[in-house]
Amino acid sequence: MTRKIAILGATGSIGTSTLDLVERDTERFEVVAVTAATNVEALAGIARRTNARLAVISDERLLPELRERLGGTACEASAGEGALVEAALSAELVVAAIVGCAGLRPVMAAVEAGRTIALANKEALVTAGELMTGAAARSGATILPVDSEHNAIFQCLAGSNKGSVSRIILTASGGPFRTASAQTMRDASPAEAVAHPNWSMGAKISVDSATMMNKGLELIEAYHLFGVPSERIDIVIHPQSVVHSLVEFADGSVLAQLGSPDMRIPIAYALAWPERMATPAQRLDLAAIARLDFEAPDLERFPALKLARHALEVRGAAPIVLNAANEAAVALFLAGSIGFTDIARLVRSALEDSKHAPPRSIEEVFEIDRLTRTRLDALMQAA
Amino acid sequence: MTRKIAILGATGSIGTSTLDLVERDTERFEVVAVTAATNVEALAGIARRTNARLAVISDERLLPELRERLGGTACEASAGEGALVEAALSAELVVAAIVGCAGLRPVMAAVEAGRTIALANKEALVTAGELMTGAAARSGATILPVDSEHNAIFQCLAGSNKGSVSRIILTASGGPFRTASAQTMRDASPAEAVAHPNWSMGAKISVDSATMMNKGLELIEAYHLFGVPSERIDIVIHPQSVVHSLVEFADGSVLAQLGSPDMRIPIAYALAWPERMATPAQRLDLAAIARLDFEAPDLERFPALKLARHALEVRGAAPIVLNAANEAAVALFLAGSIGFTDIARLVRSALEDSKHAPPRSIEEVFEIDRLTRTRLDALMQAA
Repeated sequence: MTRKIAILGATGSIGTSTLDLVERDTERFEVVAVTAATNVEALAGIARRTNARLAVISDERLLPELRERLGGTACEASAGEGALVEAALSAELVVAAIVGCAGLRPVMAAVEAGRTIALANKEALVTAGELMTGAAARSGATILPVDSEHNAIFQCLAGSNKGSVSRIILTASGGPFRTASAQTMRDASPAEAVAHPNWSMGAKISVDSATMMNKGLELIEAYHLFGVPSERIDIVIHPQSVVHSLVEFADGSVLAQLGSPDMRIPIAYALAWPERMATPAQRLDLAAIARLDFEAPDLERFPALKLARHALEVRGAAPIVLNAANEAAVALFLAGSIGFTDIARLVRSALEDSKHAPPRSIEEVFEIDRLTRTRLDALMQAA
Repeated sequence: MTRKIAILGATGSIGTSTLDLVERDTERFEVVAVTAATNVEALAGIARRTNARLAVISDERLLPELRERLGGTACEASAGEGALVEAALSAELVVAAIVGCAGLRPVMAAVEAGRTIALANKEALVTAGELMTGAAARSGATILPVDSEHNAIFQCLAGSNKGSVSRIILTASGGPFRTASAQTMRDASPAEAVAHPNWSMGAKISVDSATMMNKGLELIEAYHLFGVPSERIDIVIHPQSVVHSLVEFADGSVLAQLGSPDMRIPIAYALAWPERMATPAQRLDLAAIARLDFEAPDLERFPALKLARHALEVRGAAPIVLNAANEAAVALFLAGSIGFTDIARLVRSALEDSKHAPPRSIEEVFEIDRLTRTRLDALMQAA
């Protein structure tokens, strides 16, 4: 039976990998809706290739161009946030790969409608974790994590009773500054910080990997996805990024998921779940890899890990403040306005400053996000 | 609900670990039958401690002593092969931990009766694999592997459709001669060969680890347990024995099971399956372990791997001949009659020599086993 699929963020890295998989297996998948932020040319090309019924461009100014490019097809062109929600609701399986808070509303709509969501948007669970999981519990929605670490944990849990899980172990590459001195990190340039050893990623997420805030955000996501409290989620540095994460059970047994650094593997697991589908990803050759290393993270050089754990334990608005302050601080670092170690310092100040009540809606999430960014600007002006 | 359990081979290493677990959880398990080969004192002690209803000593000459030692208890004392079968049939869950071919009949009886068998006896699947799995398919018996490698694979497969498995990867420590020269191996003494780096085991299985015949026998077991053909079962050397084995799926994803070298972990998985139970086994600390290595096995220095793969591909009587010739050759090596590298040479001769038809019963398995040992004696006399 063909499965109808909507791809939110079809022109990005996750969207492209998703399309690569579903276009190899048209008997299994039918793409009904695709969306993009601004890349109207690529979006129209994808819509034509996949015979999607709906193509949505976030930026409403680009709607006329999208219409023109889709001329002569049966594909409806649409734009704006309402249209993104419409796209999310057009299929049973929704690949949520829009980056940033722009992804929140369509993801929430799909969750509330009880759909199956292959979730690649980090902000959804970091900033609105309680709202999302609460809505999923009411609607019966299934959230399948696409992120390689959480997908690994999901795979390790597949055959098991949740009550038998004793610990989740998130692996982290340690980023470009794993072995760097504190001094080197203080002096690090944006170019040095974005040079990730194992994965090719955008600048923002590369800096998050360098500060290890990325792993901190994943810690918060893991809590919401798997219901395991902070003190039972460990982080271990594993520079080769071959073991994507692990789960320890009550009997002392540990299951791990491993694979080549190819996002098509976790995406395929989410798309085909609870079955599996073939992918062209390179097979893992352990003898060729030869060696896997593990070490404890250095919480002094990577204070972002402590900040994220603190935000998770405080709950409420703290993870939103953490995420927004980090995003703003990383932008300042990339612009050359602050140093690398100032990122964590600014995030800490924002967290200490925050007095927001827990959000009761996505609108309140956006409001706390906005206020945090304003407050960070003020902190910068004062400095 | 309490589960009735029979422990065949209760005084050995697996039996002792099993008892350690079930005696910690008497709400879950009730030991109804225990057996031993010759250690009548230990057997009587276990029977008294667990309030077992039946205690069986294999050696019939020891029955009077067993009766005497069980005086004043409600436990029935019995002896001989028929009594072992009776013990196997006395419970829903049978831990089959008798070493060697002596374990075959009771295991087969439990399989034919549709019981759940926690299988630690290697010979059952190596020498009678087709007979056992055929009987299990007819009776609905469940075979749960206790061996750490096969238990690992079983855990990795738990949440998955068998059709999605593309490869099984058995890990091997490489034994004491992993890095030894061919010359060192030719000159190796029994004391050098039994010095296993990670597990404390008996002399026979330690030599099998040194020749890697142990892994060859496990390859044959894996075929019967998981129905994956020889060409899709790989062997990778992993000196630390932390990763107990892995499964690769069609999407390129690999699941692995890891743990401390404590047999209570796989035993607990088999006992509690499909749930899990707590064990006092040491938790895995990857940061403390720091490093895991992998390398391809050297088929020239470890010809046992090729011989076992050949026997698996030939099927029929070949695995019985492999096992019997290896057991006899290892005994000759331990007695100082042949050199270390002569073990594989003798096994190869026995395989080349064998013209047996595939066995149709356990009796025929025993007959091929006996004839192979006789033939090996003749080969030795001729040399």
